Amino acid sequence: MPSPLTKALNRILPRGRVSEIQPDLDAYRRDLWPLLLFQERSGRPLEYPAAVVWPDSVEQIQAILQVARTHNAPIIPYGAGSGVTGGTVPNSQSLIVDTKRLNRILKIDAEHLQLEAQVGILGEILERRLAHQNLTLGHSPSSINCSTLGGWLATRSAGQLSTRYGKIEDNILSLRAILADGSIFDTTQIQEFLPGLDAPSLLVGSEGTAGILVDAHLRLFPTPATRSFRGISYPNISSGLESIRQIMATGIRPAAVRLYDPIDTLFVGSGKTDSSKDNSSHSFLKEMLSGSGGLGRWVFRRFLQNHTLVNRLSPFLPSGALLILSFEGEPEQVNAEMEDCLDIARRCGGKDLGDGPGRAWWEKRHAVSYKQSPVIDRGAFVDTMEVAATWDKLERLHRHVRRAISKEAIVLAHFSHAYASGCAIYFTFIFPACGFETTRKRYLRIWDRGLRAALQVGGTISHHHGVGMLKKKYALQERTGELNLLSRLTEAFDPDRRMNPARRLDPTSRNDSSSWL
Amino acid sequence: MPSPLTKALNRILPRGRVSEIQPDLDAYRRDLWPLLLFQERSGRPLEYPAAVVWPDSVEQIQAILQVARTHNAPIIPYGAGSGVTGGTVPNSQSLIVDTKRLNRILKIDAEHLQLEAQVGILGEILERRLAHQNLTLGHSPSSINCSTLGGWLATRSAGQLSTRYGKIEDNILSLRAILADGSIFDTTQIQEFLPGLDAPSLLVGSEGTAGILVDAHLRLFPTPATRSFRGISYPNISSGLESIRQIMATGIRPAAVRLYDPIDTLFVGSGKTDSSKDNSSHSFLKEMLSGSGGLGRWVFRRFLQNHTLVNRLSPFLPSGALLILSFEGEPEQVNAEMEDCLDIARRCGGKDLGDGPGRAWWEKRHAVSYKQSPVIDRGAFVDTMEVAATWDKLERLHRHVRRAISKEAIVLAHFSHAYASGCAIYFTFIFPACGFETTRKRYLRIWDRGLRAALQVGGTISHHHGVGMLKKKYALQERTGELNLLSRLTEAFDPDRRMNPARRLDPTSRNDSSSWL
Repeated sequence: MPSPLTKALNRILPRGRVSEIQPDLDAYRRDLWPLLLFQERSGRPLEYPAAVVWPDSVEQIQAILQVARTHNAPIIPYGAGSGVTGGTVPNSQSLIVDTKRLNRILKIDAEHLQLEAQVGILGEILERRLAHQNLTLGHSPSSINCSTLGGWLATRSAGQLSTRYGKIEDNILSLRAILADGSIFDTTQIQEFLPGLDAPSLLVGSEGTAGILVDAHLRLFPTPATRSFRGISYPNISSGLESIRQIMATGIRPAAVRLYDPIDTLFVGSGKTDSSKDNSSHSFLKEMLSGSGGLGRWVFRRFLQNHTLVNRLSPFLPSGALLILSFEGEPEQVNAEMEDCLDIARRCGGKDLGDGPGRAWWEKRHAVSYKQSPVIDRGAFVDTMEVAATWDKLERLHRHVRRAISKEAIVLAHFSHAYASGCAIYFTFIFPACGFETTRKRYLRIWDRGLRAALQVGGTISHHHGVGMLKKKYALQERTGELNLLSRLTEAFDPDRRMNPARRLDPTSRNDSSSWL
Repeated sequence: MPSPLTKALNRILPRGRVSEIQPDLDAYRRDLWPLLLFQERSGRPLEYPAAVVWPDSVEQIQAILQVARTHNAPIIPYGAGSGVTGGTVPNSQSLIVDTKRLNRILKIDAEHLQLEAQVGILGEILERRLAHQNLTLGHSPSSINCSTLGGWLATRSAGQLSTRYGKIEDNILSLRAILADGSIFDTTQIQEFLPGLDAPSLLVGSEGTAGILVDAHLRLFPTPATRSFRGISYPNISSGLESIRQIMATGIRPAAVRLYDPIDTLFVGSGKTDSSKDNSSHSFLKEMLSGSGGLGRWVFRRFLQNHTLVNRLSPFLPSGALLILSFEGEPEQVNAEMEDCLDIARRCGGKDLGDGPGRAWWEKRHAVSYKQSPVIDRGAFVDTMEVAATWDKLERLHRHVRRAISKEAIVLAHFSHAYASGCAIYFTFIFPACGFETTRKRYLRIWDRGLRAALQVGGTISHHHGVGMLKKKYALQERTGELNLLSRLTEAFDPDRRMNPARRLDPTSRNDSSSWL
């Protein structure tokens, strides 16, 4: 028997665009938040949404919102579901609005470097289409195969080449969204040139709470004529960071800037110029896991159980810290930039390793997004915690967060997404999983310790993975000075609290996310 | 007899921080909007504000806002008063809150390139202080001697070197403001790294309607090791624009990019490498005006009276179009960038003129902001109209706006503030003044024709001079798709409509500014 909500939706949508059957609802119960993945693997049921819809027009979305109002259903705008912080978690009333049928490219203007596209298009498909015309968005998150343009905009995504091309929000000309009341919010073109409010900034980073994005007008870049890589080895993190800071101060903008701490360097394979070597920080795990039981599994368990020792020793590993730089653009520019960077690197104690480490990273740069499940299957839990700070606070942030979580897990880190003003840190933590409740508590304890440490030293609670349910409590702590106005603004956007309420930052419900802790 | 408002203000502020005496009120009746300057010179009285206050703390501002609420006085936040669009125009109820006593530099961190400063500090003073430590904000508007940091933020100011350093909003780490209800809106540090809303974007561009800015945390740049210039002569505007577009597509970011149309080139002195030559587009006028009556004045009048002929001939002037580029940074980078730019320029038909034209421009780059009064004294009216568009619309924007206003005035133009996605155009128009009402009508007709032409071809109505009273009507037309939400947001910020109401974009009072037309 279809529910009244589904009946109403069926009346306004074409056949096959509404579902409340089990296999469909199954697929929308979680994003890639490891906690929910683990919960599912542990046989603990996740909540099903009420229904899923796949609209392909503004009018259909407006009609859906009208039905949702009538049936008092919360709306969860949905892209490709590859978020890792629980940004699209339904309850049994939720209506999932999947935007993936809104996937048309409306216009590519190669001469003037502009793109107009609907937001449901997958990143990889979009980039391939652009590459045919020697164009790129310059946006290359490791999730590019399983994330949409809309997801990037909703989370203020940063791609791996963000140092050169900016975060996604830096390349917006205009956006169009449907607000909770069904009205269209169509921002004036070329907001970067306008006087007055920068309207797209009201939508980016809203993670489904401000409205449903429908299309975007973005700036493109020509496919670079050249791409070059350089690996540089440093005795320690400090000297590597000093290099990055000095490079950024000159105004040079490498495409990728990645500094691995000694243990992460060991995994990446510092100094190895053999480009067939798997370089992702998860490759070591993969190797340990790929043995059919036996030795690999045994080494892995020993390694995990001795996390305190591993963490203590890691700063003294002979691997040192590995910096990977990539450069893109015109050949003369790329050469001049690389030479300047190598000069700075040498003055800071770095040793040139040639282009091997960078090439190896490049080849596997999108491989990281599919590694959670096998790790869980082998009895471990892995997640990443990305935070950021200005240069003056960065090393302290690294030290404090690392210390806060190293009692509970093995901690790897690399610094990436460098800015003139600072840099992000990407921690990977791994610990043995044993029993759902125990593991869940340990997992949330790690996040609590890590993010509280980040806040204490003036770091952010996230860089490009968004807030989701996981970090909502900490986002409220981070934004203390903004909350009064933010809640008034949210009221202006969505007075009925219909849009992704589980993610909504609401000072009056400060304990919303505490059920997770 | 002090008014009740002044009495109440005197009770909460130290001696000398409140005034309602004539000479003080005189100084705050207008900004540098040429229409008001002309009105004053024509003996037509401007309205006086009720009072002026000079607070120097957050607490004082909060107390002032409380008094303003009690006495129902509109608030006009005020910087240095050098706006050119009527952004701070009082009526007899208005309370002017001058922020220039909030002028302290709170922190300069040379190592990590950060500045914390109160917003009332004058740009020139701030830059001098930074220069002592080999630092710069990279923000250099021609008004730098007569504008404040707060004014820059409130109007989304672009400096002459914006192509390299960005507009002022691109370098914000955080902002603090007092909202109309006295609450403090203190944005979390390092908004560019954060997930969620980019909170400072709610304040920048608000021109006093969102609250009173008190301090800012900004990113700094090292004083560049080298600064180089290049002048390039093109047969016409199109080939010059094509060069700029190609340069921007490579990712090279010259500091200044300025392309003068043939008539503006004539005034600037194309090809002259004598750096003592005054280069501003107003220097020609100055020369004509500086003769003691007699010939200069006669030539000037003839020139103005024949504006149609001058405009028709100007594209065919042998001067061609002059492009000035400046480069800043490390010597190797600067050389490589300049060589790449010269290659592009040559391929587009440009002729290298060496560094003379650029140096000449550099030396006089801040001279332009003081030229209005002498021009008016000589019987002419001059103003500037800065609009912008993406590359695909830029030449059309130039042609249409120029055509729209060339029936009424002599029109000069240069293109500056280049972006990867487009560029701004800075029109200067000059016409003979004769009688207040006639001149006023002609002036407003020029703006109406110019901005309607800009909107028709998809250009913006402003680039960095803000909206003010002058462009409010057109800003409402430009933001049609945003107005519904904007008015709800304004309600959230300022429900009593107390903050700079003359500038507030309010769809329900769409004809507010029509009294000017």
